[in-house]
Amino acid sequence: MVKITDTILRDAHQSLAATRMRTEDMLPIIEKLDAVGFFSLEAWGGATFDSCIRFLNEDPWERLRMIKKAAKNTPIQMLLRGQNLVGYRHYSDDVVEKFVTLAAKNGVDIFRIFDAVNDVRNMEASIRAAKKCGSHVQGTICYTISPVHSNEAFVEMAKRLAELECDSICVKDMAGLILPAPAYDLVSRLKKEVGLPVDLHCHCTNGIAPMSYYAAAQAGVDILDTAMSPFSFGTSQPATESVVGALQGTPYDTGLDLKLLAEIAEYFLKVREKYEGIIDPIAERIDVNVLVYQIPGGMLSNLVSQLKQQNKLDMYDAVLKEVPVVRRELGYPPLVTPTSQIVGTQAVLNVVMGERYKVVPKEVKDYVKGFYGRTPAPVDPEIQKKVIGDEQPIACRPADLLKPEMPEVVAKVNALGLKEVKEEDYVTYALYPQVAEKFLKGEIKPEPLTPRASGQKSKLGPN
Amino acid sequence: MVKITDTILRDAHQSLAATRMRTEDMLPIIEKLDAVGFFSLEAWGGATFDSCIRFLNEDPWERLRMIKKAAKNTPIQMLLRGQNLVGYRHYSDDVVEKFVTLAAKNGVDIFRIFDAVNDVRNMEASIRAAKKCGSHVQGTICYTISPVHSNEAFVEMAKRLAELECDSICVKDMAGLILPAPAYDLVSRLKKEVGLPVDLHCHCTNGIAPMSYYAAAQAGVDILDTAMSPFSFGTSQPATESVVGALQGTPYDTGLDLKLLAEIAEYFLKVREKYEGIIDPIAERIDVNVLVYQIPGGMLSNLVSQLKQQNKLDMYDAVLKEVPVVRRELGYPPLVTPTSQIVGTQAVLNVVMGERYKVVPKEVKDYVKGFYGRTPAPVDPEIQKKVIGDEQPIACRPADLLKPEMPEVVAKVNALGLKEVKEEDYVTYALYPQVAEKFLKGEIKPEPLTPRASGQKSKLGPN
Ligand SMILES: [Co+2]
Ligand SMILES: [Co+2]
Repeated sequence: MVKITDTILRDAHQSLAATRMRTEDMLPIIEKLDAVGFFSLEAWGGATFDSCIRFLNEDPWERLRMIKKAAKNTPIQMLLRGQNLVGYRHYSDDVVEKFVTLAAKNGVDIFRIFDAVNDVRNMEASIRAAKKCGSHVQGTICYTISPVHSNEAFVEMAKRLAELECDSICVKDMAGLILPAPAYDLVSRLKKEVGLPVDLHCHCTNGIAPMSYYAAAQAGVDILDTAMSPFSFGTSQPATESVVGALQGTPYDTGLDLKLLAEIAEYFLKVREKYEGIIDPIAERIDVNVLVYQIPGGMLSNLVSQLKQQNKLDMYDAVLKEVPVVRRELGYPPLVTPTSQIVGTQAVLNVVMGERYKVVPKEVKDYVKGFYGRTPAPVDPEIQKKVIGDEQPIACRPADLLKPEMPEVVAKVNALGLKEVKEEDYVTYALYPQVAEKFLKGEIKPEPLTPRASGQKSKLGPN
Repeated sequence: MVKITDTILRDAHQSLAATRMRTEDMLPIIEKLDAVGFFSLEAWGGATFDSCIRFLNEDPWERLRMIKKAAKNTPIQMLLRGQNLVGYRHYSDDVVEKFVTLAAKNGVDIFRIFDAVNDVRNMEASIRAAKKCGSHVQGTICYTISPVHSNEAFVEMAKRLAELECDSICVKDMAGLILPAPAYDLVSRLKKEVGLPVDLHCHCTNGIAPMSYYAAAQAGVDILDTAMSPFSFGTSQPATESVVGALQGTPYDTGLDLKLLAEIAEYFLKVREKYEGIIDPIAERIDVNVLVYQIPGGMLSNLVSQLKQQNKLDMYDAVLKEVPVVRRELGYPPLVTPTSQIVGTQAVLNVVMGERYKVVPKEVKDYVKGFYGRTPAPVDPEIQKKVIGDEQPIACRPADLLKPEMPEVVAKVNALGLKEVKEEDYVTYALYPQVAEKFLKGEIKPEPLTPRASGQKSKLGPN
């Protein structure tokens, strides 16, 4: 029997509707969602925190509490970017502990924790904090393909996550790269060699995910991530109803009620109409470039827009060839926020400047210095020399170099002169000081829902 | 190794773009399509013939010749509705033979032949005619689910098709009903018990087809039907690139070149832009109603619009309950054009009139009289009595009652006073006398491509 995690409240609208779904569109249907019998509802984390305070003038903590209150039986799940929490840089351990503790207190039952370069050290602090709260921790592997990545290596990583007392393992295929046969192999190995429940999380970007899900079911996967159909497929997950329907009458039958799912789908069809204007049709289209060029779809469109801005679109083919070279030189990072930006920007610069690594942005320097964690393979020594000269990259866990940040955060928030400060507000400020200040002062105006603007893109990453 | 039939030139745009793709949008890419190495290009038949003369002012025979001329290596395939040819009624055997002979002469290499109620007698004349031309005949099973349909029964049908010297067997899942496990079972049985190559043709309506394709590959399917991604998924086929990508590196590897496919996809993305206005977003959406109510998506929206017209939308639930009852009483026909209309209209009438079978349309009477062929199960005797009284249904092949039609057609066309009449023009006229007369006289104005009109629907069926 396969269990289902539905992502409609988080990844689905993050992938298709720029993370803009309002709490008011979630609450009326939580009771029905709760009645389905999902393994969990992914409802928090990822870009939702940022989006709430930046665009919606919503308190993400309040959203969490309301969802938790309405979902009496179904565990609430969040996506946590390891030491990055729900932000884009490493935070100090005291921020991590505070954030995780409050997330658990406000309603998160399951923490899915990952790191962009699969450096387990970047996941340790949050895993420990969540375990201390008695929460279910899903240790996560970012799936990618390269000469230094293999199912054997992923299994070794999973073993390390098991040693950290993770309760389950998630294979996170954010780019939609995994094919059915490797999915079968990886799930089989994880089940056999690690022994924890296995969750497969795919995006439908190239239309292959449903097939990989079926193969994973055959390999004994415990949980599949799906999204209610109105926000499914494309860069989102396969549709919940499709996976539930497909597995009916097999040993993998989910046991979920299609009629109830159809009622919920009808509700979200209406919600979808409200957001139709911000759904990028490109996000809903099959994109096979990830298979052809080994470059995720979102990254490709970023390259195009970077080149367009510089009026250098004629260099597109050269950049396409440069990306895998830069990725190799930088030690084969999975191409996911922020590493996809790091690799992509450097590739564009290498081509446009006419000399490789003549210009190197700060993020690339930090990456080579080890501030993002240990790279899957060592950075090419020649490139390292070019980028940071004789400076030695750090060998420790990056967050070991960060002093506790909460004391200063508390002082700053207290100095804002707010009428009332909740414990959670300090953490919000710790994550996004600039936006949080405006948000806490009540200065954020909720963004109006506009008709579709062509070329409009979310600034938030896909994780 | 799995072979691929691409449907971009026929079923894909029939399913998503109301069969409106112009020949001018096909020709520039045929050479590249031809270079891929598909098992075949489905490029003719179904509703394309009707659409050409009715809406586009294009000669379908000329389209066929041009495609055939450009595709030097890839077999051209057509969909033929058995005794209905590419129309909506049974034609006499002389029309069938003439049509098939000219289709083969003008470029059709593979005839996929089906009958809406799976009555093989309705397929015999066209199968024989195609075999006489030396063409490849794909004998086709319309897949459906009912107490009288089973994989055993489908295999028996396939054996009868093999006796008629069909070269391969197609399982045609027009409603997107087949689940992975039954697909595996059916393909396995066909391979073992019939021995002919097996082709699986699914529509993605409920998002399950990719999984059923994967299961079919595991069962040894020979050919899978897919559509180039810009016109794929939804009520169309799974994307060609997705299936090719998914099977890479497995024993089912198609061996097709993803880079070449990506180039072709880029071309059709532009073509898609041209037709964006007539692509119904509902056709692209996952529709699980077929799983919940055993009613195909297209039929459901027809029911809604029939009820709306009569201002009886409050009777929708009653009609949903009535449909399976009528289908049972009429002997469980597969719900496909024209049987979906026959069952649906009668169900609506039964509910709206307040008395069952008080009003019975001519089509339902003809169906009960046996004019559409032998029903999968006998019609309920009480219903038969209500519908046709004491009249005896025919026991013979329906077309046995039709006199040769060509002599009269020839006389009528010759009387039109056209400057030049080609052999094919007589057949065009035999199929659609009214529209053909206008078309042959040059009175059809090509329909302009309009921006999307909400609620606009194709009048052509999905087969
Ligand atoms: Co995701
Ligand atoms: Co079809």
